[in-house]
Amino acid sequence: MATLADLDQQVAHALQPVPSLDDALQAVPVHSVPGMTAGLAIGSVKKPGRTTPDVVVLAAERPAAFAAVITSSTAAAAPCLWTRDRVPAMRRAVVVNSGNANAATGPQGVADNAAMATTVAGVLGCAADDILVCSTGVIGVPMPMDRVIPAVEKAAAAALSGETPEWDPAQAICTTDTRKKVAGITVGGITVAGMAKGAGMIHPNMATMLAFVATDAAVEPQHLQALLEAVNAQTFNQISIDGDMSTNDTAIAIATGAGLTVGPTDASWSDLVTGFSLVCRQLAREIARDGEGAHTLLTVTLDGGADDAEARRWARGVVSSSLFKAAVHGKDPNWGRIVGALGAAGAVGLDQLDIDVGPVAVMRQGAPLPFDEPTASAAMGMPELRIHIGLPGSGRGVAWGCDLSAEYVSINADYRS
Amino acid sequence: MATLADLDQQVAHALQPVPSLDDALQAVPVHSVPGMTAGLAIGSVKKPGRTTPDVVVLAAERPAAFAAVITSSTAAAAPCLWTRDRVPAMRRAVVVNSGNANAATGPQGVADNAAMATTVAGVLGCAADDILVCSTGVIGVPMPMDRVIPAVEKAAAAALSGETPEWDPAQAICTTDTRKKVAGITVGGITVAGMAKGAGMIHPNMATMLAFVATDAAVEPQHLQALLEAVNAQTFNQISIDGDMSTNDTAIAIATGAGLTVGPTDASWSDLVTGFSLVCRQLAREIARDGEGAHTLLTVTLDGGADDAEARRWARGVVSSSLFKAAVHGKDPNWGRIVGALGAAGAVGLDQLDIDVGPVAVMRQGAPLPFDEPTASAAMGMPELRIHIGLPGSGRGVAWGCDLSAEYVSINADYRS
Repeated sequence: MATLADLDQQVAHALQPVPSLDDALQAVPVHSVPGMTAGLAIGSVKKPGRTTPDVVVLAAERPAAFAAVITSSTAAAAPCLWTRDRVPAMRRAVVVNSGNANAATGPQGVADNAAMATTVAGVLGCAADDILVCSTGVIGVPMPMDRVIPAVEKAAAAALSGETPEWDPAQAICTTDTRKKVAGITVGGITVAGMAKGAGMIHPNMATMLAFVATDAAVEPQHLQALLEAVNAQTFNQISIDGDMSTNDTAIAIATGAGLTVGPTDASWSDLVTGFSLVCRQLAREIARDGEGAHTLLTVTLDGGADDAEARRWARGVVSSSLFKAAVHGKDPNWGRIVGALGAAGAVGLDQLDIDVGPVAVMRQGAPLPFDEPTASAAMGMPELRIHIGLPGSGRGVAWGCDLSAEYVSINADYRS
Repeated sequence: MATLADLDQQVAHALQPVPSLDDALQAVPVHSVPGMTAGLAIGSVKKPGRTTPDVVVLAAERPAAFAAVITSSTAAAAPCLWTRDRVPAMRRAVVVNSGNANAATGPQGVADNAAMATTVAGVLGCAADDILVCSTGVIGVPMPMDRVIPAVEKAAAAALSGETPEWDPAQAICTTDTRKKVAGITVGGITVAGMAKGAGMIHPNMATMLAFVATDAAVEPQHLQALLEAVNAQTFNQISIDGDMSTNDTAIAIATGAGLTVGPTDASWSDLVTGFSLVCRQLAREIARDGEGAHTLLTVTLDGGADDAEARRWARGVVSSSLFKAAVHGKDPNWGRIVGALGAAGAVGLDQLDIDVGPVAVMRQGAPLPFDEPTASAAMGMPELRIHIGLPGSGRGVAWGCDLSAEYVSINADYRS
């Protein structure tokens, strides 16, 4: 019988490769989960004149379990502080805007955030405390409330109507993302679907990322919180784009209760864990793949270390190395930089290090192998580059990142304009 | 009376701005310090056909105090492990090569490193243990010993001759550096001079940097070690180029004893501290200024935090932020990213945050100020951009970095070719 105590192992087990399950993932909108609705509106939050939605209200038809994992930044934005104080609990909706992070905006930002929640609550007929808030975009600019509030009101009304929105909310929450990120799956009769936005500033311990994952299961809020934290540790916290950690990172889980009631001791709990784990991993991979200016999804699997947590930390070290990321961009099989990154991460047992770059073994037992550079270079030019690292110990960890390109710099050199 | 216990404060005091002392810094070679000699040779370590020196032997004319600070990477290169085991102590020389890091080279690398030391020792007539070794360059490639050993022998013979070398050794130790880095000063009759190489992979807790600082004072090895560690913490450890930490970072201090005998209780100890602090700060700034692809030296001064160590850590967080570094490159006064970086570094008291970008106040007491964007943008385009950050608390820390440019990526995308 499963318990919350071994959730880490349950998630690790759920993330073992099972091709039939991976194939079952579908690109469905988050509001396709029974019991969920979504409403969108054009707020032109970043600047006037926008023609596509940038404000979303994701609502449960009835009070539902909400859980959240929030940035550990001490500069956490007003919406993060608001949301952190209101989970885990039975809540009603989350309002999301892109274009402005409402971060470093002082007391006015706190008031603006509360006004957004209050506006949604007024439309849905619930308390402001029942509304969570997420904002993403530029830091340090006051929210243009004259445009935000009418859009929030409109999005809330659209969510209340229950009508299928014309646009996917996954598109509305994007900033520098080049495409929307959605994933859904049904496992053992339990539906899980989610959406995310990412791009820059994605790093272990969250990122400039927002993620929303909903299920139709009925789950106690504290159980949902534990599940989200465990899955987050092995998915969203294992991606790195540029080593920065944002003021606004938030992952929210919603259990609408329209379907099966599921607790940790129920047989179907493992289906819920599997669904959550696979959806979040898929979203995490999509975020890494779409890192600002990125051309290559970098997947680093590390077998070794005293335990999974250590293996994950060392794997993260590799996907976080600017030098190795630049080498990936140049298709330069400069595996010495992998060793450098592992050393900087504190990995031990490097005299027994194995490294494979794609299909090419480049190091065994700490000794460089002669290898065919064109083959390794070709592997580095594929849409996904898989690096396998072997070290002493029985831990296992996976991390995702991307190459570092000149486009990253140009995107970020003048983001505000 | 000064003691070793308050060395941190002594160094902090020495680094207070004193224009007359800063002006006294000169670009002199390290072997201009009385009691030092240098010999150079062309080893073509990276690849055959080089026409300028890449092997250096820095020797003391007589046994001298040697101290070192070494990378904390668990993948530390063979020369680092060798050198770490032999300081602080009375030693004779250090042999340095650029073009190959002798890192991740396994037992052969250990043997090759020992052979370099043995070769120098044979020429100088001392034990191999009296020779330290530093290597910098590509990781994971065996040292081309057929070319290295003759060059090491030649460089050692040149050092033994005492003749002034035709080339500055500071040039010979460069890799992707665009210019040599030297600094020297005489304070109260004590001469200190040093050289460094930097470029990529420079990060707190050392970097792909080598630094060599010599003085003519006679200093006990353990006192020299303490001084080097204290100065290192406020200079070389406060620079970041790309967040990576290298396998080879080493700073070496040499006290030849050709001049004054100086201990912590002597009146002239503070002159020695001042000389070391100013030379190392100058070298650290030159390393940051010459970061791979960099156009702007970024100097972040933070007044606040519980103590200097906290202030230094928070300041480092700002110079380490890829997002802010990209904004500097784009001359975009996006100070929100400073807030984001401070939050990620765990800075507290952000509701009382002051920020100045060059001469432009952009935030006071946690609230954004209206400011003239063209003036701020112009400040960001200067060769040196000074950011001042104010937070509650009496700590003070300075950190140096550089902008993140597209050139960084192109330099590192194909470094080996």
